[in-house]
This record gives sequence, C-alpha cells and structure tokens, in this order.
Amino acid sequence: MFLKPSKGQLKFLAGLDQAKIRRREGFFLAEGTKVVQEALRSAWQIESFLIREAKAKNLGGLLPAMEGKKVFALSDPEWKRISQDKESEGVAALMVLPAFRSCREDVPEGGSRLLLLYQVGNPANLGAILRSAHWFGIETVLLSEGSVDFVHPKVIRTSMGSLFHLRILDGLDFRSLLPRLKERYALVGTTVRGGVPPHPVEKPSAVLLGSESHGLPEFLLDRMDENWCIPRRGDAESLSLPQAAAILLYEWTKME
Amino acid sequence: MFLKPSKGQLKFLAGLDQAKIRRREGFFLAEGTKVVQEALRSAWQIESFLIREAKAKNLGGLLPAMEGKKVFALSDPEWKRISQDKESEGVAALMVLPAFRSCREDVPEGGSRLLLLYQVGNPANLGAILRSAHWFGIETVLLSEGSVDFVHPKVIRTSMGSLFHLRILDGLDFRSLLPRLKERYALVGTTVRGGVPPHPVEKPSAVLLGSESHGLPEFLLDRMDENWCIPRRGDAESLSLPQAAAILLYEWTKME
Repeated sequence: MFLKPSKGQLKFLAGLDQAKIRRREGFFLAEGTKVVQEALRSAWQIESFLIREAKAKNLGGLLPAMEGKKVFALSDPEWKRISQDKESEGVAALMVLPAFRSCREDVPEGGSRLLLLYQVGNPANLGAILRSAHWFGIETVLLSEGSVDFVHPKVIRTSMGSLFHLRILDGLDFRSLLPRLKERYALVGTTVRGGVPPHPVEKPSAVLLGSESHGLPEFLLDRMDENWCIPRRGDAESLSLPQAAAILLYEWTKME
Repeated sequence: MFLKPSKGQLKFLAGLDQAKIRRREGFFLAEGTKVVQEALRSAWQIESFLIREAKAKNLGGLLPAMEGKKVFALSDPEWKRISQDKESEGVAALMVLPAFRSCREDVPEGGSRLLLLYQVGNPANLGAILRSAHWFGIETVLLSEGSVDFVHPKVIRTSMGSLFHLRILDGLDFRSLLPRLKERYALVGTTVRGGVPPHPVEKPSAVLLGSESHGLPEFLLDRMDENWCIPRRGDAESLSLPQAAAILLYEWTKME
C-alpha cells in the first residue's frame, strides 16, 4: 500500500532542492528510474521511495524492489513540487547522506587510486566525471572546498547513479591535505600545456583535475610529482573537462 | 550603427529554432560569445550579427570583429523570441548552412581519418563529440540519416563552436555508403563487448560510433574490419557516449 505524504513531509521534500537544507537534514532526493536502480544496488541507504501516482504503472519492474520500504504516492501537483527532472519518470528515492563525507582530516584508505577534483563547480561535469570514475574502477573521490554539492540533483542525474558506488569525501582543504597524501601516493596533476602525456601508473597514485575554466592553480601544480597534458592534434582551444577526465582515467588505469 | 530588425525579419529569425525551417531557408543561428568567436575564425559564412541591445556593452571585444557586416540590435522582448540559451550572453550570428552537406553520394576526400556517427539523436552528445573530434584533428564527420540536426542550437553550444572547423556531411545512408568507403578506408566499429581495445591507426581509417542507448546495429558491425571496445575496470553498466568517443579519438590519433 502506498502512503500519502503529509503537508509537512512535502515541505521537507521540496526543501531538499537546497544544498544547505540537504546538509542540515542529512537527506537528499535521487530521481529517475536508472538512478533509483543504481541506488538499490549500492550500499547507500534509502529511507523511502516517492512515486508519481499517475505514472505508477510505468514503474513495473521497480515496484517489487521497493517492498519493505515506505513508498509515498504523490499527485501531479505534489510531484511537481519535489521533482527536478525536466522529463520526469515519476520515481525518486529519499536517501541518507552518507557519513564518510565527514572524514575530513585523514588521508583516506582509498585503495591504490584516488581521484581529486579541485573546485569543480559545474554539476553536469562532476556527474559525468563520477560516471567515468566508476567505469574505470576508482573507489574514492576527494572534492575540495568550493566544489558543487555532490548530491546536487544534476550531479546525480548526469552520473546515472554511479556516485552511489563511490566513496566521496568533500569540503577538503587540498593545500593542507596534499603533503599528507604525498607520503603514500604519487601525485599527478593535469595541465593544458607543459606536461607529459598520460600513462598507466601501477603504484598508489592520486590524479588531480581542476575546473574546465580554471584548471589547477600553480600552488597545487607545484606540489605534484608529475603533470599530465593530453596531446592535441587540431587547433581547438580546449577539450571539455569530462572528456579530458575520461581519457586520463583510461590511461591511468590501463594494464599493459 | 546598429540596425533594427523588421517584424518580418524577427519572424524569420524566430523560425530558425525548427530544423525544417533551417533546411528550407539555408540559415541557422549560432549563439554565445565563444560560439561567435569560433564562427569568426572559421571558413563558415556569417550573414549578419544579432546583439541584445541591453547587453551590448559586455560584448566589447567582439564588436570590432563585426565591422563590415550587418549588426541588428534587439530589445529584450525581441531577444527572447530568438534566443535559445538559458543564460544568454546577448550575441548571435546568423549563419549560412554550409553547402558540403549536400555531397551525399560520394565518398568524401576527407584526409586519412573519418568519424562516422550512426543515429546519434542527443544534441548534447553530438556537440560534445564534435568538440573532441576538433581537438584530435579530425576534419570530416559523417552523420547517418536519423541523426539530430548538426546545427541544432544545443549541438552548437555543446560543441563550443568546434563544428565550424569540421566538414560535416549528414543524412547519409550508411548501408550503401560503407561498401564504397571500405575500398579506401579501414573500417572500425565500436561495441560494448567483444571487441579489441582501441589503438592507434596510421592508415586511412573510419571509426563508427552509435547512439548511447543503442550502439551500432549488427548489420554495420558485420561490415567492419575490426571492432573496438573500451576495457572496463569497475562494475559500471556503461560509459557515456561523449566520454567513450573521446577515448577512442585519443587512441586512434595517438602517435607512438
């Protein structure tokens, strides 16, 4: 049986479109069929499900997976208040913000590869990078302070739910973190000119990427063991950040 | 001196948001500062410029480049009718649809590398692929019938104007084209499983990509000299099409 949300519950859900409310409450919404499927097959915690009543019959395959959890059925006007997707599929999960985001001080036990993103502010770019990171088997992603919220609806959508398979630490001060990281990881920066071509690295290593418009600042590039630059064959001015990231992840994790 | 558009001119410009009108009239709009800059440094023909009067002072650097061309200044309500960008920068170029799109029957004299895209319908994906193709020095891109219009506003925006540096032939019947292409090019397909890893190719070669959801159909894969598959290290279900394309372009054009 589906539940009907109270006025207070609806207000709470609608408020989760704001990053500061998500942080305060410790919850966020993950919308879309594919995204909810990935949430279900991840270790992230689902509090309850929301479905748009008028579209419930399209959710066939997903409904059995919701058994044992609360499922709220929303009317069209109610759905409109909480949905962020332009072409909504009528399903979302209310999820718990994972606790690993608070491990700010320690160098993570993150396997042999860490992906570090410095002030990536565009949610579609972050989502796309997380999706590629998942493909290439990266388990831990570190976000600097000044990055977009990693549970921003557009990050979730663009990542196609890949973020639920990653350990993501955010709000980090890279300036103070890097010296400690350097004791255990080879540090690799990325730059649009002056670096060496990307290549496979077997030993514990951390690759850093900056935003599409600003890249990495000098004070970070200076601390790297090496800097990578993707060779260009044409006269284009730039490669997009998610595409550059995909190429670097591909080379970095390549096995000869 | 700026011109004021007539009612008829405005109606004409507003109509260019439809692919069929663009084809019939032979014109399209290219919006945004970066996009207009790329149009200016390309061989594609600019008919006139459109600026949003209220934002003209922000265009400083671009205005001198418009000299000798007609420049129409639009009021805010007029701009709203023709602009497709959510956060409009207030500048656009009215451009001539290049004539090479009509060379349907011949195998193109396209240098040693051709990129073929089969039924890519998502404009953001097509734009992102064109941007990467430009970076990696591809000169000619062939689009099958059933692809999104390559001068769709979202293709132009996502490509950041890179498409103006490419020769793009569209509406092609790949089934009849491939046997003729095969006489001069090694044909490389792409698949999510069962292929070999991508690698550099020096000889004349054509790489084919399908859409993110459907990939390439069997009847095309069967005609290939080889099929490439990007190795996966994690348990992700798929890599996004623009990211996969970037990796393939990178490997294909790599020089040892």
